[in-house]
Amino acid sequence: MRRYSIASIPGDGIGREVVPAAIAVLTAAAAKCGFVLEFRHFDWSCQTYLKTGKMMPDDGLDRLRDHDAVFLGAVGFPGVPDHISLWGLLLPIRREFEQYVNLRPVRLLPGIASPLRDKARGDIDFWVVRENSEGEYSQIGGRTGTGENEIVVQQAIFTRRGTDRILRYAFDFARRSGRRHVTSATKSNGLYHSMPFWDERFAAIGAEYPDVAADQYHVDILAARFVMSPERFNVVVGSNLFGDILSDLGPGITGTIAVAPSANLNPERRFPSMFEPVHGSAPDIAGQGIANPIGQIWSGAMMLEHLGETEPAALVMRALETALIAPDIARTPDLGGNGTTAGFAQAVRNTLLGL
Amino acid sequence: MRRYSIASIPGDGIGREVVPAAIAVLTAAAAKCGFVLEFRHFDWSCQTYLKTGKMMPDDGLDRLRDHDAVFLGAVGFPGVPDHISLWGLLLPIRREFEQYVNLRPVRLLPGIASPLRDKARGDIDFWVVRENSEGEYSQIGGRTGTGENEIVVQQAIFTRRGTDRILRYAFDFARRSGRRHVTSATKSNGLYHSMPFWDERFAAIGAEYPDVAADQYHVDILAARFVMSPERFNVVVGSNLFGDILSDLGPGITGTIAVAPSANLNPERRFPSMFEPVHGSAPDIAGQGIANPIGQIWSGAMMLEHLGETEPAALVMRALETALIAPDIARTPDLGGNGTTAGFAQAVRNTLLGL
Ligand SMILES: CC(C)[C@H](C(=O)O)[C@@H](O)C(=O)O
Ligand SMILES: CC(C)[C@H](C(=O)O)[C@@H](O)C(=O)O
Repeated sequence: MRRYSIASIPGDGIGREVVPAAIAVLTAAAAKCGFVLEFRHFDWSCQTYLKTGKMMPDDGLDRLRDHDAVFLGAVGFPGVPDHISLWGLLLPIRREFEQYVNLRPVRLLPGIASPLRDKARGDIDFWVVRENSEGEYSQIGGRTGTGENEIVVQQAIFTRRGTDRILRYAFDFARRSGRRHVTSATKSNGLYHSMPFWDERFAAIGAEYPDVAADQYHVDILAARFVMSPERFNVVVGSNLFGDILSDLGPGITGTIAVAPSANLNPERRFPSMFEPVHGSAPDIAGQGIANPIGQIWSGAMMLEHLGETEPAALVMRALETALIAPDIARTPDLGGNGTTAGFAQAVRNTLLGL
Repeated sequence: MRRYSIASIPGDGIGREVVPAAIAVLTAAAAKCGFVLEFRHFDWSCQTYLKTGKMMPDDGLDRLRDHDAVFLGAVGFPGVPDHISLWGLLLPIRREFEQYVNLRPVRLLPGIASPLRDKARGDIDFWVVRENSEGEYSQIGGRTGTGENEIVVQQAIFTRRGTDRILRYAFDFARRSGRRHVTSATKSNGLYHSMPFWDERFAAIGAEYPDVAADQYHVDILAARFVMSPERFNVVVGSNLFGDILSDLGPGITGTIAVAPSANLNPERRFPSMFEPVHGSAPDIAGQGIANPIGQIWSGAMMLEHLGETEPAALVMRALETALIAPDIARTPDLGGNGTTAGFAQAVRNTLLGL
């Protein structure tokens, strides 16, 4: 029997609720399809930080290294500054395991209306390919001077290797998925060094893919176009920061960011990839059992896909989409219902077992 | 008679069409209200660059310095790299004249539908206050290494003085406008030095305004919230880059970025302020006489307001809003009509003269 060892890190806030809910669905899919998912749980979170001064143990990354994948909930909670919690857990995993691709679908699910007038399923269906390991997210820089004279420097680092590999991934993905059109997010009119370089590499790599159409927009107007004409996008590639913004805005136009998944991929498979929803730990609703588990379940489907379990991945998505349009389904409050995290996941699980 | 000397820089592309159109409206308002706008034209553009190697003459800034305001169209055109054209004209004006506030209304105009389902006038009505002189827009940095080993460094510089003054402007503006709620755009979970500093200053300055509510969101989720719940915003303050993105996205949710204005303000009035639409030079439609002049006209109204001509400013806006709902008005193609730039401006002018 095929076995996969998965490191699960529920993390903070609603991560602790949606991860078990999603695992219930994934485990059912595995049982039905004849393979085994072995989850090993790592209870690393802002609580860990408050107790030990560290988000994870010193050998944390080594403990994850031998798993087939990492299944993460959410990181960050009031009481621990965000740059401490994220640079102590999520970001080191992305970097150490060279998960340089952050892949995020922007797609309307059935039964969830877009906030955009006149846009239905099919109108909103594209992918954001985000650079996930360098760029604007950087710990290089610091403060100098005091009081009125204080100056803060923040450096962004773009390497040719890091830039080329994400652009190449985007073009390969566009080719592979049959959506032969890549749009680049730039801001070369304002950011004097980084983005002209990004544009240069986009042109150079694009030239290697004559069968894939390429265009680019400054990120400001691109954000506006996500709202005005989402149907024109297929694959959108952006730097770490631009990809981050665009891949939250994307879910925004699909009705709720609670449903959006993401895959942090090490395409070469030298290291485990990591799967997590786009949403955060949502302190405002944490502990109530009402968080929407869809983003976590969908992330789980992307994980199965990455593990090579293509059929089971499709089964999970079919169960999710079927459950979403069932008349009696108890949706979570963010989708206008009064259901619970566990109840909704249970319904997806039952639907799946019946398919 | 009150006289104002205005430096007009139509710039590139549709800037050359919308600036004269807007001037026709503003001049009519001045005539009707008994003051004089003296426009002096500066023909600086990418054409200038292609001829002379510079976007403006060496003493360009000095030639602008003694005007009461600068009225700008758009800068940038294919054939000149964007970072060359913008750092050669627009950005030096903003910096040299300490126009550290970029103020942009996000407001639905009558007769223009939001692309957001269920959002009507009143639901979308807030202001973006953008830092306009430092931060992520920086020429500091460069490239090192060659070929596969190339590395590009881009520095962002945040000064305490620059950060405090924009935050203070935002809180003052919120107080003055009676919309006592400021939302800060941050990304302190990813950007390790700059944004924790920004948050710290936001908290410190906010404490000086106990009568103004303050909250903050990471820019990714904030972008999604612009789409999901625009009605909850009043004054949104952001860094140069975040403010740029949010103030294009804002107009995106109001139906078209063609109508959005901006004011580049030197609040101390030591230097001229500059007024320009949010849209760019739109090479794709330049030269056809069909560009929408609303953003430029609205920018002109903000200029009159800044000059202290409050009534005339309101008159221009009333004329614009009245014209927009007149049944026989010939709207420009971006608004679904078949009118021309000059024709639409003429209609606004006639409406104004009849008010
Ligand atoms: C043209 C560009 C440099 C400019 C900016 O980013 O500031 C524009 O997008 C704006 O918003 O005024
Ligand atoms: C939590 C934060 C550091 C993270 C990011 O910006 O990468 C999140 O927003 C995401 O998109 O995964």
